[in-house]
Amino acid sequence: MTCNMDRLYEAVEAKGHVCVGLDTAVEYIPPVELRRGVTPAAAVLAYNRALIDATLDVAACYKVQIAYYEELGLAGLEAYAGTLAYIRERGALVIADIKRGDIADTAARYAKAHFDGDFEADFVTLSPYMGMDSIEPWLSWAKTAGKGAFVLMRTSNPGMRDFEYRELVSGGRLYDIVGDRLSELAAAHSGRHGYGAFGAVVGCTEREEAAAIREKYSGLFFLIPGYGAQGGAADDAAGLLRNGNGGVVNASRSILRAWMSGGEARETGADNRVAAEAARHAAAVMRDAIREAVQYRR
Amino acid sequence: MTCNMDRLYEAVEAKGHVCVGLDTAVEYIPPVELRRGVTPAAAVLAYNRALIDATLDVAACYKVQIAYYEELGLAGLEAYAGTLAYIRERGALVIADIKRGDIADTAARYAKAHFDGDFEADFVTLSPYMGMDSIEPWLSWAKTAGKGAFVLMRTSNPGMRDFEYRELVSGGRLYDIVGDRLSELAAAHSGRHGYGAFGAVVGCTEREEAAAIREKYSGLFFLIPGYGAQGGAADDAAGLLRNGNGGVVNASRSILRAWMSGGEARETGADNRVAAEAARHAAAVMRDAIREAVQYRR
Repeated sequence: MTCNMDRLYEAVEAKGHVCVGLDTAVEYIPPVELRRGVTPAAAVLAYNRALIDATLDVAACYKVQIAYYEELGLAGLEAYAGTLAYIRERGALVIADIKRGDIADTAARYAKAHFDGDFEADFVTLSPYMGMDSIEPWLSWAKTAGKGAFVLMRTSNPGMRDFEYRELVSGGRLYDIVGDRLSELAAAHSGRHGYGAFGAVVGCTEREEAAAIREKYSGLFFLIPGYGAQGGAADDAAGLLRNGNGGVVNASRSILRAWMSGGEARETGADNRVAAEAARHAAAVMRDAIREAVQYRR
Repeated sequence: MTCNMDRLYEAVEAKGHVCVGLDTAVEYIPPVELRRGVTPAAAVLAYNRALIDATLDVAACYKVQIAYYEELGLAGLEAYAGTLAYIRERGALVIADIKRGDIADTAARYAKAHFDGDFEADFVTLSPYMGMDSIEPWLSWAKTAGKGAFVLMRTSNPGMRDFEYRELVSGGRLYDIVGDRLSELAAAHSGRHGYGAFGAVVGCTEREEAAAIREKYSGLFFLIPGYGAQGGAADDAAGLLRNGNGGVVNASRSILRAWMSGGEARETGADNRVAAEAARHAAAVMRDAIREAVQYRR
């Protein structure tokens, strides 16, 4: 059985570091597509399929934020399931961005929900607040089905300073001790490229700490948010990589809404084909910028 | 507009402290109900409706754990939506136990998903790890629609010691600073009974700290897990109440599976009617035990 974290490492080697975030709000879709008599949820799925087809060779993986689908109710979750299935059908890897965190019995139910059946993904995101017994039930799926996870460690939003950044009497900050515990897990489930099945979410918005974090947590593969709309740049992201790998960098709005830039796109009748081309271009530019930043650091 | 937290306070006055947790796994349903040719998801919804009908006058509110529904895929989420709708139709209050916590843009989408449309609930549960900007977007729904939330503070699982219990250089433990920030929010949105629209999840498994927590966070209404299957008892729960109110105590398995106790129930052909009677009895016994513990403390 090939572990998904190994597959992701290899996808980064082959295609670069871009994780395309499919946080597809209806308002990101060209208006002409919404006038075709389809439901909003069906329009979201069609938009996603067009973007997936266009970005397969420039994206290491995809991340689907479930909130944008839940917002559309049951029909939205059907589009969510359809998006995950389409990515997997096309042979690509998908991260379900669900940030679950609950007691062990509940975590076991969640794991079955998101690693099997209608909502099967290759990876999930998890929240560590309740402790390691909320993380561990997911791990049995790493052993039996190669599944992986990214646990919130140091995120990219301003509020990260409220709790994640708190200094502990035992030394370090809260996010450090989360990283320490994840590193122990990773060491126990290390794949063929030296990364554990469970990695961490580490934002690229705090440049000065990146080197220390990367060095200390060498066995953790990082899911790196904060690029583009949240203020992070290629050089910040590169600081969280190791030997040019060890992380994927997520961008959502800058790719999903790439067709809107240029100003007159709305008026000139952009459709999914145009949007997919623009998304592909935005993802390729981002891929090249990160690769260049990695080269520069060497 | 009546704020849901005020309604919950009044429900506790009228009906006691029991929050019936509908973590309805298929294996908790009498086998005869599963042999009627219905789908597992439809059986879950029918079971919930029977239990809701039977417990309306002994339950302050209901809590629905979404993991148990996601486990059944899209059909399960239809049963989840149906369960929320049925509770609200019957005039009762429902907490969506979803423990969301994400960046502000995403939180706004989640809030729309769970406070409106197919998945509308009266309250949600939230996770604070990412900081207060992951909580605040939900608050606009308190102002416009009376909605409420319970934010994880000190939970009842063994893993709570991993992070929630960490002592901070700035004083107190991590859960204290979460409580402090929630108290600030609560003070800014206080209802007519002195509790804010946003309360906290505080487990009843650590008796020695209960009095200090209750006294310090007097403006926070508590959702109290850990009763029964997780080891907490009526006296532990009573220690987290204030003047006989200020909290609801959740029990799931001890109510959902009450029909199984007695040993021969499975063989003797228990059905939903029998299970609902057993659930009602278990909830009433729990209600009385907590009321008695409250009286004893006075």
